[in-house]
Amino acid sequence: MQNDRRFMALALSLGRRGMGRCWPNPAVGCVIVKDGRIVGRGWTQPGGRPHAEVVALAQAGAAAQGATAYVTLEPCAHYGKTPPCASALIGAGIARVVSALQDPDPRVDGGGHKMLQDAGITVETGVMADQAALDHQGFLMAHTQARPLLTLKLAGSFDGRIATASGESQWITGPEARRQVHAQRAVHDAVMVGGGTARADDPSLTVRGLGMSHQPVRVVCARKLDVPLDGKLAQTARDVPVWLCHGPDAPDHLRHSWQDLGAQLVEVPVISGGQLSPLPLLKQLAALGLTRIYCEGGGALAASLLSADLVDHLIGFTAGLTIGAEGTPGIGAMGIGRLAEAPRFNLKETRQIGADILHHWVRA
Amino acid sequence: MQNDRRFMALALSLGRRGMGRCWPNPAVGCVIVKDGRIVGRGWTQPGGRPHAEVVALAQAGAAAQGATAYVTLEPCAHYGKTPPCASALIGAGIARVVSALQDPDPRVDGGGHKMLQDAGITVETGVMADQAALDHQGFLMAHTQARPLLTLKLAGSFDGRIATASGESQWITGPEARRQVHAQRAVHDAVMVGGGTARADDPSLTVRGLGMSHQPVRVVCARKLDVPLDGKLAQTARDVPVWLCHGPDAPDHLRHSWQDLGAQLVEVPVISGGQLSPLPLLKQLAALGLTRIYCEGGGALAASLLSADLVDHLIGFTAGLTIGAEGTPGIGAMGIGRLAEAPRFNLKETRQIGADILHHWVRA
Repeated sequence: MQNDRRFMALALSLGRRGMGRCWPNPAVGCVIVKDGRIVGRGWTQPGGRPHAEVVALAQAGAAAQGATAYVTLEPCAHYGKTPPCASALIGAGIARVVSALQDPDPRVDGGGHKMLQDAGITVETGVMADQAALDHQGFLMAHTQARPLLTLKLAGSFDGRIATASGESQWITGPEARRQVHAQRAVHDAVMVGGGTARADDPSLTVRGLGMSHQPVRVVCARKLDVPLDGKLAQTARDVPVWLCHGPDAPDHLRHSWQDLGAQLVEVPVISGGQLSPLPLLKQLAALGLTRIYCEGGGALAASLLSADLVDHLIGFTAGLTIGAEGTPGIGAMGIGRLAEAPRFNLKETRQIGADILHHWVRA
Repeated sequence: MQNDRRFMALALSLGRRGMGRCWPNPAVGCVIVKDGRIVGRGWTQPGGRPHAEVVALAQAGAAAQGATAYVTLEPCAHYGKTPPCASALIGAGIARVVSALQDPDPRVDGGGHKMLQDAGITVETGVMADQAALDHQGFLMAHTQARPLLTLKLAGSFDGRIATASGESQWITGPEARRQVHAQRAVHDAVMVGGGTARADDPSLTVRGLGMSHQPVRVVCARKLDVPLDGKLAQTARDVPVWLCHGPDAPDHLRHSWQDLGAQLVEVPVISGGQLSPLPLLKQLAALGLTRIYCEGGGALAASLLSADLVDHLIGFTAGLTIGAEGTPGIGAMGIGRLAEAPRFNLKETRQIGADILHHWVRA
């Protein structure tokens, strides 16, 4: 059992390599062990195929015969774009499968485990299930709640300001914190900002400085599509996907302009007050395949998501400077009257990062 | 030398026991070592007397003859309310004195070390001087800058709010953080708040729950003395000192009322905008003997002290909840246009405390 946990931990760490780059598929890891030796390792490849099991089996070759396969999620049982992994494991002569979690995808949902058992393979499930549930949280939520996991990141001053009154925001936090933001972007399927941030900062929202070719989708929430057509997002929409979430009242000429630039349009209903309705917004993005979204503000979008109780991870980068009350608040108006109404989060981690602190909270 | 550092570290830790309770005197520690054995330990007693050396010598008795005395600050050389400690060390037959720092008090300022040397005692200085300078920072500043050390503490939400729009603030942070605040109050000579906080929260500003009888002075900055005469501070002003810092325009009847209640009045000039002028405020408090002040807001006082670059330690307690932009900001308007104008601090420590985080920064 101790060895089972050890090999599963390795499979989980391999699985994380695919995080953010294999949506809509889960970022699975697989380790194949024969007579105590690792003979195959695999993880879901960019774009979601091949699956982890297929990669590991290919590496193991004939050594897979009679071996144990550790998989961080139930092997698939259905013919999608590839034959089912359960069949591949059976065909390779795997004797035992240790699996962390059942796959809630209705096309699998225990069917993979059953296929293996029916073929005479010993199946053990639930090994390191808690860690696997964290790693696969976005994928699991997409299937059980029809919305992606949402991480909200705010980088600000000691007093929670993200810019001075004049709009100066570069740089409040230091290079180490900004590098960490790029690393966090990289393990999400998409980076999301509100239209105000897109207008004010002209961000590129790409992952830079980490030697990565893969890029998350860039999602901008702009009800009226009022994002500059000559900004960085517009200019690079053919290189790295840009999805513009807009309301029903977005003007046709802007819809056409953005489509001509190569952006994908996502129409979302609005709520009173004129904001995009946050839950339908996330559901649309899940329907398009996204499982993990990294929202970087601004204040109005952050407040909208928090008020709707849709923030799963809350990450703060706090710098050692004070801007004062005229500065731009990191979270906009939430309409909270009493403290009991304020969304609460449990601390996961706090640590120094460069000259700043990182604090990571999860939904309470 | 290794032993010298070890005994000095012990003397420093003893000295800290007096922190916050021996002003205007420094919180000195003293260890007396004979033939490698500790024969006396002392620290400055509440109220500032007896001094650490006298306590340690009394404990050592005849064993002080030929021994080494470790002191965290130069022994005093002048007759104040007690005879000079340098004389006491000489009289007890101490052979060697190891001292961390020279005392900048003009009545000492090297004179203590010289008295000892003139009496044939070996004197070594500068052992663990950096740590001693931190421990004695308030005392040193009072003598070199004529103002006390100032710690600014803010306890707020993830987004830097200290209350909801309706004014509800109890409790944003948890009991562990609040207990830590009491411990921090206890190592300062005074706790200070602005008049708005005194009116809104009716705080008692005492140290509670730590089994302590000593209490820091309670300082309230209220230009017009508009603090409720039936509040907790007023009711307890005879039990624990209350000092009210006010402007020249404070009404006479309120001055009399507060004096009748037992409060001490401190008149301070005002600056344009009507606030108490922050540097003269601190200088007055230093002149009255305070060396370490713990300011707990509110936002206007915090902004005033930060804008004047008078905050030496900045301590945040951040809770995992979001209040949004209508909430009360922990730091008021600072009039900062550009980021380069924002006061900056270096991180000293961040850690979890109960459900919250503590982050401690020092002036950059």
